[in-house]
Amino acid sequence: MTATTLVDDRLELYGTVTAAAIAAYVQERKLPAPLADVLTGFTMRRGKGIRPALCLAACEAFGGTIDDALPAAAAVELLHSGFLIHDDIEDDTEQRRGRSAMHVELGVPVALNAGDALAVLSIRPLLVNRSALGSRMTGAVLCEFQRTMEHTVAGQAIELDWRSGLVVDLTPLDYLDLVMRKTCAYTTMLPLRVGALIGSWGTADLLAVARFGFLLGAAFQVQDDVLDLVSDRHRYGKDALGDIREGKRTLAVIHFLETCAADDRAYVNAFLAARPTERSAARVRRVAELLRRNGSVDFANAYARRLALAASDAFTEAFGRCAPSPAVDFVAALVPYMVERPA
Amino acid sequence: MTATTLVDDRLELYGTVTAAAIAAYVQERKLPAPLADVLTGFTMRRGKGIRPALCLAACEAFGGTIDDALPAAAAVELLHSGFLIHDDIEDDTEQRRGRSAMHVELGVPVALNAGDALAVLSIRPLLVNRSALGSRMTGAVLCEFQRTMEHTVAGQAIELDWRSGLVVDLTPLDYLDLVMRKTCAYTTMLPLRVGALIGSWGTADLLAVARFGFLLGAAFQVQDDVLDLVSDRHRYGKDALGDIREGKRTLAVIHFLETCAADDRAYVNAFLAARPTERSAARVRRVAELLRRNGSVDFANAYARRLALAASDAFTEAFGRCAPSPAVDFVAALVPYMVERPA
Repeated sequence: MTATTLVDDRLELYGTVTAAAIAAYVQERKLPAPLADVLTGFTMRRGKGIRPALCLAACEAFGGTIDDALPAAAAVELLHSGFLIHDDIEDDTEQRRGRSAMHVELGVPVALNAGDALAVLSIRPLLVNRSALGSRMTGAVLCEFQRTMEHTVAGQAIELDWRSGLVVDLTPLDYLDLVMRKTCAYTTMLPLRVGALIGSWGTADLLAVARFGFLLGAAFQVQDDVLDLVSDRHRYGKDALGDIREGKRTLAVIHFLETCAADDRAYVNAFLAARPTERSAARVRRVAELLRRNGSVDFANAYARRLALAASDAFTEAFGRCAPSPAVDFVAALVPYMVERPA
Repeated sequence: MTATTLVDDRLELYGTVTAAAIAAYVQERKLPAPLADVLTGFTMRRGKGIRPALCLAACEAFGGTIDDALPAAAAVELLHSGFLIHDDIEDDTEQRRGRSAMHVELGVPVALNAGDALAVLSIRPLLVNRSALGSRMTGAVLCEFQRTMEHTVAGQAIELDWRSGLVVDLTPLDYLDLVMRKTCAYTTMLPLRVGALIGSWGTADLLAVARFGFLLGAAFQVQDDVLDLVSDRHRYGKDALGDIREGKRTLAVIHFLETCAADDRAYVNAFLAARPTERSAARVRRVAELLRRNGSVDFANAYARRLALAASDAFTEAFGRCAPSPAVDFVAALVPYMVERPA
């Protein structure tokens, strides 16, 4: 079996059980129709399902079963879905999972409340699972979730401040700090830590798991940014060049501003200072072209690969003593997958 | 001591300890400056503090101390603050606590994220308090919070659907159902139940407490709607006639549509179907005048008083066996306070 087939097969397996668990949770809550319809519609639009897959695989890798971590995996995915909806409002992202973003389709009030609802629902499986995990483990898992959510809102606040404050004097380290809070915290670190915690019954080295999660998540995010710069809309399911249009301070932009010629810097700074509505498609394309010509896209691409190399080492530290299993192979195979996956 | 002095004194006492606890929680989290500043600024704008006061008083009434329930009271207030910010975005409310609403002052993205942050922070005191309350009680309190938040997002979804779907064939019972989900669930029922749960160490009759909470909260909300119709902006700290402008289906509006003359109904239905921007100040005043002349404001006012009478009976059921204390007197005095308080 090739590594990509292994990844795709496990993503399908983990994604299917998680989607079924989520559907059951949402249905069981007997929510009023206007809310239930919106939530079901959105959660049916499945993404790649990396987050619940990491949670379930980590649990299996450390000796647990899929069932042990399924409520936590469902919670991770519900929470992620809620954040996505709020993120899209905050960034005014127009496309999501190949369709209009929810606030574009149904308006900000309905979307905002749906995001709140998904976050609220995400806590429920964790509470219900106390009958299986016991009070102490349940408390530990809840603490992981609460701390992660704090990282996420803090990261979001920092990024909004960068944009509204017209901050441009940033370094790659500032970017990595933001990515740790915004992406890694709940995309990789939370699901891996919670899965390992449950699977190992509290005996896994969670710091080593977190280190691996950070490097894997950072590689994922940097590559995601690169894909936004080089992909077309049809293949990627989000806005092409959406990050540029939103004025996102990605690694490529930060590298560009550190290394480009003075007049190019002036052009991009003026672009970043402009209102989103003033950022015409032509200006967006021009900025993307400037980044490419300056080697900033290549820089980000190479950076993602270096992060992936470091992630491979960290994987050995974190999972090296786990017994061989498809779950362990899956987690290992995710490292190259993150930086080599198709747009 | 008059009942009003008693209420004001206890509100001041409970409000002061809750504000100090919240300030300590927010500071202890070492949030990045842009987020910490926004949250501190908002939580400093204290409201009347009914919610944490109910939680602390119920705990005392059932034999506990203020300290026992203080983390839960802080959580209630943090959660409420977060919901307020999101509600104001969803309803496009312009004024809050005598100032511009946060999304008006700082923009929707910052306000949305601040609301998320307050909700996330609200969970933390509940988790930390496990060292005092133990795992079982902590789990029970978390379940109360989670279920309440579900009621709130469900209620918000129903109300948004009423507005966007141009729903007008509503009865007072529809309104009470909405008020139970949106207002009572987290304004009165959650704090009272959690306070009683902690104070009685799980022995209080929480159904009786919830019944009292529902009637008290409904009386509060109906009176709040009336105040919006009869108060001026300066005294009330929110938009005068803001509910009308937002197209809110209050009890007065529902009564009006059930009882008014056909041409008046056509006028108000057209008003409710209009976009918010089309609802001029003159049209808003005209609707308010129609409601008054039809006796619908008087109807809502009398309804609030009947709810308060029922709440007094329910108070006796729920708190009748508690030993006399200032806390019990405070809860009892809140019933008339809710319908007689100044605008």
